[in-house]
Amino acid sequence: MHSHPLRSEGVIFGAEYNPEQWDLATQSQDIPLMVEAGITMVTLGTFAWGALETDDGVYDFKWLRRVMDRLHAAGISVCLATPTACPPMWLYHAHPEMAMTNRTGVRLGQGSRQNWCPSSPAYSRYALRLVGRLAEEFGDHPALAIWHVGNEMGCHNTFCFCERSAADFRQWLRERYGTIDRLNHAWGTAFWGQYFRDFDHIDPPRETTTLQNSAHRLDFARFSSDRQIALYDAERDILKSIAPDVPVTTNFMVTEHISSIDYGSFAEHVDLVANDHYLIADDAQSWRELAFCADRTRGLSDNRPWLLMEHSTSAVNWQPRNIAKTPGEMRRNTLAHIARGADGVMFFQWRQSAFGAEKYHSAVVPHAGTETRIWDEAVALGASVARLAEVRGTTADTAQVAIVFDYEAWWATQLDGHPTVDFSYSTEMRSIHSALLDRGIAVDVVPPKADLSKYSAVVVAGLYMMSQELADKIVDAVERGTHLLVTYFSGIVDSDDHVWLGGYPGALRETLGVRVEEFTPLRAGESVRMQVTDRHPGVAEDELTGSVWAERLRNTTAESLAVYSDPALDGAPAITVRDAVGPTGGSAWYISTHLAPPSLAAVVGEFCRVARIRPAARVRGSHVEVIRRRGDDRSYLFAINHSPKEAFVDAAGTDLLTGEAFTGRIPLRPGDVRVIREATA
Amino acid sequence: MHSHPLRSEGVIFGAEYNPEQWDLATQSQDIPLMVEAGITMVTLGTFAWGALETDDGVYDFKWLRRVMDRLHAAGISVCLATPTACPPMWLYHAHPEMAMTNRTGVRLGQGSRQNWCPSSPAYSRYALRLVGRLAEEFGDHPALAIWHVGNEMGCHNTFCFCERSAADFRQWLRERYGTIDRLNHAWGTAFWGQYFRDFDHIDPPRETTTLQNSAHRLDFARFSSDRQIALYDAERDILKSIAPDVPVTTNFMVTEHISSIDYGSFAEHVDLVANDHYLIADDAQSWRELAFCADRTRGLSDNRPWLLMEHSTSAVNWQPRNIAKTPGEMRRNTLAHIARGADGVMFFQWRQSAFGAEKYHSAVVPHAGTETRIWDEAVALGASVARLAEVRGTTADTAQVAIVFDYEAWWATQLDGHPTVDFSYSTEMRSIHSALLDRGIAVDVVPPKADLSKYSAVVVAGLYMMSQELADKIVDAVERGTHLLVTYFSGIVDSDDHVWLGGYPGALRETLGVRVEEFTPLRAGESVRMQVTDRHPGVAEDELTGSVWAERLRNTTAESLAVYSDPALDGAPAITVRDAVGPTGGSAWYISTHLAPPSLAAVVGEFCRVARIRPAARVRGSHVEVIRRRGDDRSYLFAINHSPKEAFVDAAGTDLLTGEAFTGRIPLRPGDVRVIREATA
Amino acid sequence: MHSHPLRSEGVIFGAEYNPEQWDLATQSQDIPLMVEAGITMVTLGTFAWGALETDDGVYDFKWLRRVMDRLHAAGISVCLATPTACPPMWLYHAHPEMAMTNRTGVRLGQGSRQNWCPSSPAYSRYALRLVGRLAEEFGDHPALAIWHVGNEMGCHNTFCFCERSAADFRQWLRERYGTIDRLNHAWGTAFWGQYFRDFDHIDPPRETTTLQNSAHRLDFARFSSDRQIALYDAERDILKSIAPDVPVTTNFMVTEHISSIDYGSFAEHVDLVANDHYLIADDAQSWRELAFCADRTRGLSDNRPWLLMEHSTSAVNWQPRNIAKTPGEMRRNTLAHIARGADGVMFFQWRQSAFGAEKYHSAVVPHAGTETRIWDEAVALGASVARLAEVRGTTADTAQVAIVFDYEAWWATQLDGHPTVDFSYSTEMRSIHSALLDRGIAVDVVPPKADLSKYSAVVVAGLYMMSQELADKIVDAVERGTHLLVTYFSGIVDSDDHVWLGGYPGALRETLGVRVEEFTPLRAGESVRMQVTDRHPGVAEDELTGSVWAERLRNTTAESLAVYSDPALDGAPAITVRDAVGPTGGSAWYISTHLAPPSLAAVVGEFCRVARIRPAARVRGSHVEVIRRRGDDRSYLFAINHSPKEAFVDAAGTDLLTGEAFTGRIPLRPGDVRVIREATA
Repeated sequence: MHSHPLRSEGVIFGAEYNPEQWDLATQSQDIPLMVEAGITMVTLGTFAWGALETDDGVYDFKWLRRVMDRLHAAGISVCLATPTACPPMWLYHAHPEMAMTNRTGVRLGQGSRQNWCPSSPAYSRYALRLVGRLAEEFGDHPALAIWHVGNEMGCHNTFCFCERSAADFRQWLRERYGTIDRLNHAWGTAFWGQYFRDFDHIDPPRETTTLQNSAHRLDFARFSSDRQIALYDAERDILKSIAPDVPVTTNFMVTEHISSIDYGSFAEHVDLVANDHYLIADDAQSWRELAFCADRTRGLSDNRPWLLMEHSTSAVNWQPRNIAKTPGEMRRNTLAHIARGADGVMFFQWRQSAFGAEKYHSAVVPHAGTETRIWDEAVALGASVARLAEVRGTTADTAQVAIVFDYEAWWATQLDGHPTVDFSYSTEMRSIHSALLDRGIAVDVVPPKADLSKYSAVVVAGLYMMSQELADKIVDAVERGTHLLVTYFSGIVDSDDHVWLGGYPGALRETLGVRVEEFTPLRAGESVRMQVTDRHPGVAEDELTGSVWAERLRNTTAESLAVYSDPALDGAPAITVRDAVGPTGGSAWYISTHLAPPSLAAVVGEFCRVARIRPAARVRGSHVEVIRRRGDDRSYLFAINHSPKEAFVDAAGTDLLTGEAFTGRIPLRPGDVRVIREATA
Repeated sequence: MHSHPLRSEGVIFGAEYNPEQWDLATQSQDIPLMVEAGITMVTLGTFAWGALETDDGVYDFKWLRRVMDRLHAAGISVCLATPTACPPMWLYHAHPEMAMTNRTGVRLGQGSRQNWCPSSPAYSRYALRLVGRLAEEFGDHPALAIWHVGNEMGCHNTFCFCERSAADFRQWLRERYGTIDRLNHAWGTAFWGQYFRDFDHIDPPRETTTLQNSAHRLDFARFSSDRQIALYDAERDILKSIAPDVPVTTNFMVTEHISSIDYGSFAEHVDLVANDHYLIADDAQSWRELAFCADRTRGLSDNRPWLLMEHSTSAVNWQPRNIAKTPGEMRRNTLAHIARGADGVMFFQWRQSAFGAEKYHSAVVPHAGTETRIWDEAVALGASVARLAEVRGTTADTAQVAIVFDYEAWWATQLDGHPTVDFSYSTEMRSIHSALLDRGIAVDVVPPKADLSKYSAVVVAGLYMMSQELADKIVDAVERGTHLLVTYFSGIVDSDDHVWLGGYPGALRETLGVRVEEFTPLRAGESVRMQVTDRHPGVAEDELTGSVWAERLRNTTAESLAVYSDPALDGAPAITVRDAVGPTGGSAWYISTHLAPPSLAAVVGEFCRVARIRPAARVRGSHVEVIRRRGDDRSYLFAINHSPKEAFVDAAGTDLLTGEAFTGRIPLRPGDVRVIREATA
Repeated sequence: MHSHPLRSEGVIFGAEYNPEQWDLATQSQDIPLMVEAGITMVTLGTFAWGALETDDGVYDFKWLRRVMDRLHAAGISVCLATPTACPPMWLYHAHPEMAMTNRTGVRLGQGSRQNWCPSSPAYSRYALRLVGRLAEEFGDHPALAIWHVGNEMGCHNTFCFCERSAADFRQWLRERYGTIDRLNHAWGTAFWGQYFRDFDHIDPPRETTTLQNSAHRLDFARFSSDRQIALYDAERDILKSIAPDVPVTTNFMVTEHISSIDYGSFAEHVDLVANDHYLIADDAQSWRELAFCADRTRGLSDNRPWLLMEHSTSAVNWQPRNIAKTPGEMRRNTLAHIARGADGVMFFQWRQSAFGAEKYHSAVVPHAGTETRIWDEAVALGASVARLAEVRGTTADTAQVAIVFDYEAWWATQLDGHPTVDFSYSTEMRSIHSALLDRGIAVDVVPPKADLSKYSAVVVAGLYMMSQELADKIVDAVERGTHLLVTYFSGIVDSDDHVWLGGYPGALRETLGVRVEEFTPLRAGESVRMQVTDRHPGVAEDELTGSVWAERLRNTTAESLAVYSDPALDGAPAITVRDAVGPTGGSAWYISTHLAPPSLAAVVGEFCRVARIRPAARVRGSHVEVIRRRGDDRSYLFAINHSPKEAFVDAAGTDLLTGEAFTGRIPLRPGDVRVIREATA
């Protein structure tokens, strides 16, 4: 059993609350409605710097105290944000150099959010002064459950290119490399004659003529991520010094399209991992992306319960087409996060704004008020979440499979001059996650530092950059019996973005028993065909297809599971298996193309058979998610039907949401969710 | 009978004339050719600042006087432009700060036109000095018919972001709001903590991190439009002070894709509304856009005759593919403008330039000279226009239908963070205009300030921003018997871009008898189906389809004309009708999606039936435009056949263009136009 | 017989060698491997400024001398680059103004290459000092075969917009025009009122409001090209002053998509024309583009042998999808360059970089080492090239057809405000080149200054800008018997971008016997149909189709070969022929649209029949390239089969590559190449 550090009970059901946007008459309706909806915690203060410090050193905490007092009286706890995401306009006016400078040298203007340089001394001085005052005012307030530093740190201001940021970057480089020679070696400045004589000669990687030094850019990404963590730490240290017992966190943005901060490093700095997650509306199966991101968040939390700080009741406002959720979709989303380890689920925001840039972002109380589908569903959902109180503190069932995920490797895939623009690290990982999800198989998404040898199988998908240390760890796990599945463009470069020479994938080719001579990426829309050999009769398809990529590879100690049937690569290995790595080792599989979903399902199915990976439960139906949370003496099977057809799950126990008891075959209506307290945990 | 203020006779047929681009030999051919083509007025001086003021305070008016004298001798009047659109290079060199600064802070460079800051004191000082000198020189010239201030004001320099513009913007805000608190309220600065303490802290909405404060951007659009009008007024005041009897105007750009200036406000400042109109070549039915824009221009002119200052004989030069007009197309275009209220039609330009950025813009005299289709058609057209002299001073027949059009609402639809990028205000309006056009129904396109109660029907299409005042006026008209047709995303926000709460469309939901809970925009390319209910058997289609948008709505006092048949909205109202708003009121119709053209035609047909809207004439054939101009004692039916098939119009009278007399059924050849002086007006 | 100036034997087989990127252990393997591959020359020093001048005035030439000594000992000669493409970082730090400023005023940053202003005094001072030192050190080294100035000059820094560049531009204009009045006339500043009073008032054509003065932009392109040539000349003069006997060159980039430098002018400044050529991977028939560019390069060299300085063994790294070459494709590419006149073929680069922006650019020694397809093919190719030694010094067989190619005309097509964005000068030329290539017909691609009357036929394709002088020369050649084929949008403007008035194509309409009234470009994806008349029964198709463009044209003295069948142009001439221009003249053909490939093949076939153009050899099969090199007493027929089917060539002689002798019908396997020393040359 694990426990998160919040002074609250059951599974938290909450929302971000911005009373300062509303008149008092409207505010007076809020708390009764929150009680009706079953809200147990709200986030306050996120954008309130200007309302709390109305002029330099002039504070107004009264309104916030009044709100907190009333929430406390209603039994609702508070996640109190330090309002440092959006400095007030008087401060920008006094310190114009505080604003962000973009890659082309433009200092950005007013009217948006988070427009401050992360290296600005003025920003830090004022922000930390306010954080101290806030902690003194509210650190002992009985409603206070947790501090929330800033908001979505680095969402818009990770990369600042001003001279102050340049100076900080140089200092960071000095500390990383010590001597300029070591930097020159790491950055490969011998290429294109870029040798530096002195750290003082180095700038951030501003707009330039053409392809830019990849290691220079990579280090700027590392530096910029570190800056955000340092900003967090500075606030946290002040909060801890004044209110040492209150936990501190900030809301991450673990989402398919955001890669700017290394949350793998950041997670060690928070008392509780908290995440914001929004669906990409254009993705018709966005529940798959949600499942992957929730597993990533659980991985950051080292499998301890985490907090979903923000999601939406329906549409957002920042996508090209902001698709509303269909009836039941919010409920499935919320419960899917809980299924994958969240012990609290909150919405942005409580009441839909009447003005401002996010007024078309859905909320618990819509513009149309409480006589709405959204409100009705939210109230029902609040009741459902309350019924799950006993789930709190359990964790995801031990997964047999791990996918290794690394932010630095992600950054490295975004550098200039790669074989094809069609490669996407997150797509590669998610494809395999989805293939496993469809089989009901639980997956841990783990950082490079994780212990891999405890897993039956490890997946390395598109992990372009791989340190010697990680490679050694993978090899070690395989030699000790773990089965390994590797996809193309993994293990190509070391941590300085230098290619592992001698044949790709340099870091793993011995283990895989293959040697790739050459990448042969495909044209846009082009596909490649493969023929399955006789070696693995369990593979469900005879012919496989891929896109994006192919390779010219040779087997050394592996054998081919499938060979290319296209002219240029005729008969060459496409998918390979090395049966056993060493006397007691697992098998090692390599896929040299981006397999189409049915082809990937066939290969992953065979891999699971060989590695003896078992699903959480047997399902009849498709698009059904099953996953288990387990405590010391009990277990809960979550089953979510994302399809418009009825499905059945083989399990026994009592549905916490309805109270129904089942002895084996549990029906699951279209779009429905069940949380089964299992009979025989 | 109305009259425009020009000292000219009949319908003007003219062109912009830039003799300073040509040698004297070529110039000597111009006036004889103008006489051959029936040209009665030319615009002079548009880009001549540098030719008239060759250095600071050094003037050369002789060449212009010579041209004007010769035109006068030939009976051709002059529309004299103040050449303030393009300051001379010596002035830019002396005042580099006079150049435009764009949103990213780049001060723009040489080689193009209109590159000056509208708040530049240096620009104004020099421009007004020249205007005064020009008025003194030519204010009493007998050829002078009208002054033409600048050229296409704000076409490229509406939005300047320099510090001088910033200062002007602050001053404008002070005048609008008085106190900073009122600005904070209007701008919703409580959102994202953007409270301002002082007007001095406010900048123009420059490039920023992400979504930008919508009210801030909206006010900058208002300010920038006001600046252009102020620049016009400053010139006009000088012209009037020196030559009080000469009318003054400037050429608007009423076109589907240009929204930067509020011509609804600007129109009150000119003595005669003048417009430039160019087809969008990529639009295969651009005659529909022309009809809509001509109706908009007539609306700006409050139904008085107006002047088409520029259109083209064939292709333009600034589109990606500059499609030439087909034979007869220029004639149809020109006469369509007259049909919709123009008492003068002019071309840009007289003679096609041999050099410069517009040399591939067609003209009356092409590069190839007068042995050309274009010249032949222009000469024939000049003769046709001359035959329409008696039409001058009549106005469009009183329309039964008004479409409310508002520039500020257009700007508001262009702000950040809206439900879908696929919504287009001008598309929404034009779709309904086209459906009415296809039925031969005249439409007034009117500003919010218009008297709506005089119309049988009022259309509110995608009018996102709606003041309380306009909403009251619409409701009042409906209660007095006007029928109302409203389409989705109308009446959503007030003039500060604050949402009307309680259910969309907040400004009109009581009148419509519906309450929209939630927008449910569609994916790109997605469509939605609707089933027509039994209530309106006159609707020509059983099943309707829409795209872009759908909504979750409930009827309060309305009934459904059609309901959604797609799963997520199954059976919910899609198109509603409230039969009568109050005891003597009209009906109120609401369409919650972007209907496909046949579906819209079916619904608009039924609406017209209920509202008893009649066509200008009965037509057999499709793609035929019919519209009537009417004077005190006579009327003219214009019939334009845009199709490649013969058509017939039920009317009686004499065709001014051919002299033929008809007693009932008038044949209209493919591509032909008739202007019937009606027997029984 | 011609000879190139290199102190080497046979056909050069080489690569760029960057030992400074590698440790000594790796370097020690290089020379033995080069010998194995048959490498006879390497380029050294390209990016070595920072390694040779480690700080201001501190030189280290030892490592370079050691490498050159060892190469010499192995019999490998050196093409020594002046490393001025990439100045060292200490110099940028000392002279920040040395960096490029782009069109929006952004001074560009670090991390890439060639980021220096071509007008920078600091750059030139330091670069020339280093060049002098290098020449003194190595000018008499026995390995040195040729100097190579900079690298791909102007690839990224042709256009700098800083104040220093502005000053140089003004000086260039002063020299070109003498008086400001002549500039005003040439630039057409009468349009949009842009008269300049003084050269000092002129700026480079920076980012501006809309369409920009075309002549202003054209002159900036001329100036910028001249700057690059001046930079070359400055280096060359120093090299020649110190080592007068060593030839000097630089690597051009004659490629379909690069137009920034006027190589037609530049070619006169080099001792040996050298080119870099890379395939555009997205083009499935990129061998056609290669053939055209090789012919262009040969044209620059005035039909003397030239040097392919760079091409790739397989994929490059800078395209969106970097497609690998298929087996045999490198061999075909390399031999195709030799077939079209190269006496040396080199690769970028010897060893694939392990780091930096180009690490995924293929090389002779790949990341995977020498147990690879690429290495094996390169070694075999080295042997093949060695067998071609006797070809050295022969030149392309005298072509009967010339295509006139002009860089200034290309720039002119890229200016603002043209009829359609779909027109592409290089596509027009290449379409006709391909149609001739498919018939086995050799083509000279010649500059305007070439003697045209020696050709049986001259092609003018999309040559938008044409001086009076060129027009006169074309007319003169036709009157003396040369046949002329002209395609649309040729001969439209003079050298100042002023339209030739009176009907298009003004410069050639008398000769062609046509007069174009108006351009009628087509919509995207639209096509136009034509009917072939009875006049030319030899045309292989009855109906032709075109896209992009059509015209309204009249025949004056020509007759129609095909007429338009679309409504707007019904029956109007589309393709015309004037049988004989004058008593002894050739025929003059005009094509007014962009013909689809089969239609163009039909028309070009008929043109060749009339003009009596003969192929290099008769071929049975398609996608087969045949071309002949000829010496004083011998000839070599190159036959390259780009198809997957066997083909046959009617020829007799001995295949230099295999030693096989043939007496008439030579088989050519799929993908194979033969070089036949012909029996009866």
